Amino acid sequence: MVHQLLGNKDVGLLFIVSAPAGTGKTTLVQMLTKKFPSVVESISYTTRAPRVGEVEGKDYYFVSKEKFQALIAAGEFLEYVCLYGDYYGTSSSWVQAQQAAGKHVILVIDTQGALLLKNKCRATYIFVAPPSFEELQRRLLARGTEGLEKIQERLAIAITELERAHLYDYMIVNDQLQTAYKVLKSILVAEEHRVMQ
Amino acid sequence: MVHQLLGNKDVGLLFIVSAPAGTGKTTLVQMLTKKFPSVVESISYTTRAPRVGEVEGKDYYFVSKEKFQALIAAGEFLEYVCLYGDYYGTSSSWVQAQQAAGKHVILVIDTQGALLLKNKCRATYIFVAPPSFEELQRRLLARGTEGLEKIQERLAIAITELERAHLYDYMIVNDQLQTAYKVLKSILVAEEHRVMQ
Repeated sequence: MVHQLLGNKDVGLLFIVSAPAGTGKTTLVQMLTKKFPSVVESISYTTRAPRVGEVEGKDYYFVSKEKFQALIAAGEFLEYVCLYGDYYGTSSSWVQAQQAAGKHVILVIDTQGALLLKNKCRATYIFVAPPSFEELQRRLLARGTEGLEKIQERLAIAITELERAHLYDYMIVNDQLQTAYKVLKSILVAEEHRVMQ
Repeated sequence: MVHQLLGNKDVGLLFIVSAPAGTGKTTLVQMLTKKFPSVVESISYTTRAPRVGEVEGKDYYFVSKEKFQALIAAGEFLEYVCLYGDYYGTSSSWVQAQQAAGKHVILVIDTQGALLLKNKCRATYIFVAPPSFEELQRRLLARGTEGLEKIQERLAIAITELERAHLYDYMIVNDQLQTAYKVLKSILVAEEHRVMQ
């Protein structure tokens, strides 16, 4: 009787994580999936060509545009976007299969995608924020992988993303990586003990 | 801008903890207040006489019945009960003063009191449950401090308490103390990062 209140423990939870570029979301999520075998990051479908080193079924499921559009028509995607002519999407049945197998699924998507999901999908929404706008700028410059124009563009997007942070359930300010990781882990453990209403 | 979403960090949170007797709630709460100086357990007002070793302002605030009734009339209590002719109550202004000083306050009360609070008080509601009814019975018998009749009474109350567990935000099943403590700590950390809606 007691355990039923925590929902079916054999079914995993869904976590939606959004964060501006440069906040360390990728590192944080990888730390969690590495530590907890019960947590997996969602693997997206995409129509873009694999880059060197990318592995089918690990980094992405690579499909043709025709196949992707057929999947859209079949209502197969939880969410999808088209960026620079290529599609990226999360398979609803893939996520459900993982959850049914007892895995918690982490879906890293932008705020726009996340907020569309909010109305149709029971999940825990987590926003990872930089400690400050100045620090975000510093981190993006320090990466040294992008030109100034691209960085300006990312910062502009970051502002839009931050303006939507209040719509999330939790916010983690990634100032110190280890501290931020502990918070992410705590959210996972807490949510595992949330009473199903 | 970012930090404002997490509410005023200088103001503490309120946690309401309920659990049937014998579930280890007292131990769990003490572990938390010992580890986190920012967490305090609420100190109740009572009209009963101090027992040997009880300290004013640490275990209780001991007041006369007249004083307690005047405080009730003044709307001073967040909640209060009358048990076997003696009053026990939580001072609203005491809790607020602690929160204003940045302390998280833990209030351990029965489910009846907790559910009355739910309508008028923003707080995180945590239910601590025994792993099973049989285990609870075993623990109460093992204490050896109470007669069989008293234990029967406690078990009957426990059933009523458990029936209300679904109205709480979180449920911790205290099977292993250290595991249960980690969950309680995680709930604290997670709630510190909840976005204020």
